[in-house]
Amino acid sequence: MSITKFVMPEVIFGKGSIEQAGEACLRLGAKKALIVSDSGVANAGWLDKVIESCQDAGLAFATFIEMTTNPKDREIEAGCLTFKEQECDAIIGLGGGSALDVAKGVALLVTNGGIISDYEGVDKVHSPLPPMVMIMTTAGSGSEVSQFSVIVDSFREKKMTIISKSLVPDIAIVDPATLTTLGPDLTAATGMDVLTHAIESYISIAATPLTDVQAKNALSIVSRHLRPSVASRHNEEAKKAMAMASLQAGLAFSNAILGAAHAISHAIGGKYLLPHGEINAILLPHVMDFNRIASPRRFSEIADIMGIDTRALSEQQAGMAAIHFVRELSRDIGAPKSLSDVGITKEMIDPIGMTALEDACMITNPRDMSLEQINQLLLTAL
Amino acid sequence: MSITKFVMPEVIFGKGSIEQAGEACLRLGAKKALIVSDSGVANAGWLDKVIESCQDAGLAFATFIEMTTNPKDREIEAGCLTFKEQECDAIIGLGGGSALDVAKGVALLVTNGGIISDYEGVDKVHSPLPPMVMIMTTAGSGSEVSQFSVIVDSFREKKMTIISKSLVPDIAIVDPATLTTLGPDLTAATGMDVLTHAIESYISIAATPLTDVQAKNALSIVSRHLRPSVASRHNEEAKKAMAMASLQAGLAFSNAILGAAHAISHAIGGKYLLPHGEINAILLPHVMDFNRIASPRRFSEIADIMGIDTRALSEQQAGMAAIHFVRELSRDIGAPKSLSDVGITKEMIDPIGMTALEDACMITNPRDMSLEQINQLLLTAL
Repeated sequence: MSITKFVMPEVIFGKGSIEQAGEACLRLGAKKALIVSDSGVANAGWLDKVIESCQDAGLAFATFIEMTTNPKDREIEAGCLTFKEQECDAIIGLGGGSALDVAKGVALLVTNGGIISDYEGVDKVHSPLPPMVMIMTTAGSGSEVSQFSVIVDSFREKKMTIISKSLVPDIAIVDPATLTTLGPDLTAATGMDVLTHAIESYISIAATPLTDVQAKNALSIVSRHLRPSVASRHNEEAKKAMAMASLQAGLAFSNAILGAAHAISHAIGGKYLLPHGEINAILLPHVMDFNRIASPRRFSEIADIMGIDTRALSEQQAGMAAIHFVRELSRDIGAPKSLSDVGITKEMIDPIGMTALEDACMITNPRDMSLEQINQLLLTAL
Repeated sequence: MSITKFVMPEVIFGKGSIEQAGEACLRLGAKKALIVSDSGVANAGWLDKVIESCQDAGLAFATFIEMTTNPKDREIEAGCLTFKEQECDAIIGLGGGSALDVAKGVALLVTNGGIISDYEGVDKVHSPLPPMVMIMTTAGSGSEVSQFSVIVDSFREKKMTIISKSLVPDIAIVDPATLTTLGPDLTAATGMDVLTHAIESYISIAATPLTDVQAKNALSIVSRHLRPSVASRHNEEAKKAMAMASLQAGLAFSNAILGAAHAISHAIGGKYLLPHGEINAILLPHVMDFNRIASPRRFSEIADIMGIDTRALSEQQAGMAAIHFVRELSRDIGAPKSLSDVGITKEMIDPIGMTALEDACMITNPRDMSLEQINQLLLTAL
């Protein structure tokens, strides 16, 4: 570690905090907010909550909810149009990673111009963004606190990873109550995403003491609370815990970046538009196994944090135990086990490797990875 | 915990990061910065480093270094005058808690007007402050990341605790190299301040999972690295660790507030202008002993984090062991043991209790405290 940076938004956390959205946005100097969300979140009643909070705060608003799974460049362009037509000056994002990443993309383009692919990579943003309040409804992408936006380039059929401090929202609202309307499959998939964030940021070559504390705590929470959170949508303790884990894992990876699981997952998700959390769940144990030799000590610590008794184990054995823990957790909550479970065939693997190698998340993976090694890993994960 | 908030500045951490001060301030839109510091820091060469960084960045600047130990209202007024005369539009604070708290006070008054005592208490600030970059040179007050400014009211002979999210700097620069020019006494006193921050924020009634991770990590680091940091000004590992501990303890207490040790310490420091860290070092074990019954579990966890083997101990015994640990640490690094060591006599105690009771830090103390109990504690600490 030489000189490192750590950024995060103001965080408002707790049951009922969604009701503060309008006031929070007003406090940032907004006159009219564009609420970017999706129809699932709207149907669950959360969009109405945010609209009410704007009305209560006396904040004008417009809505944009034309969203699909895996956020796309054209959705950002449509959102920008609405932002301008409606003469908005601030963004409220409401939803899971897709809605929030589109919300960030809209914020980016309305002040920086051009098209979203202009900003792929690290630190390409030049002008400040409009005020942003981000409300997460999954646990989750961590997008509400991160400097990331991951967007599908429809033409190139790939996910672009955009990383910039300017993408850190001004205020993140994390209301565990929003998790109670999420079904078990999405709870499982998004929960495995949190686990992947915690582990990849902990072994990232850009990890720092400030990201480590967040990653470790997130990992500890997921290890204990993801199962009960998937089991019941009424388990408030588990929802609160997972909301906190998602937030902390988000802070960790936002500042330490990620690794090969995300790089490959972005490549697969961008090409075949599959759910990000499920792909991560499948790839994570394979990537851990590949990365294990890069930092045996950290893998042994991961086992410790998971609650595994490592006293009689070598570092290598502890690392293996951690991977086994991930497989068991994944199985218990019903996450897909293999790429073929989600419809990927051997023939579909070919274009993945090159795209994964170019993903910004690959840079911080602790073990160098060749095209052959990616292909080998994908075959093992089939 | 119902709804909680967590705020922190952007952090730039690492050896040599002080050289980024000018560029960081420029990035916030500044045209001319007032550098608020003190003569000790200037003599150690750090002011020149910051001035150089401004020149390199093409940022105009003025300086204000008329500062005494324990930051005073009149120093803020003088600083405001310089800010206006020199037509500055941003603040760079450079120093320990005193310099940074004066820097924040100047920032507060130049946009909010009035006198500093108008803002005593919680959330009294109404207008945004100018851009602030804070560079700490002790480990330390945590002022570089906190929403606190503690200022002596010369007329009332008391320290005013001002708490507002507006006091959180935009950018905190933590350069462990600055700690190498600090003597052992100041290293010890400021280190005991860090320990007090970590413990008081961990047992605060406003603690949250987000503050807990920071408090626990800070506590763990101080327990291992404060002794070697006091022992040698050339121990880079210890300096880096203590800089991180100070930062994390600052994040914890900024968001969880503090307790009776700080409330009483502010009362004594404001009346008799004694070094804050030394008073905390004396009071901490006594306050821990008083607070112990409020949260036996947390005290037992504190013992664990300090590295004490608590397996054979009851929660009560573990808590006592934690207090013993603090006394031993304090003794090893040569911190004063009793109030009489720093010149406080029985007669001088009388006016302390009422002032301490009114301090904002008393609100979050985990055990209710009466005037009689404060007086009793002070007698025991004599």
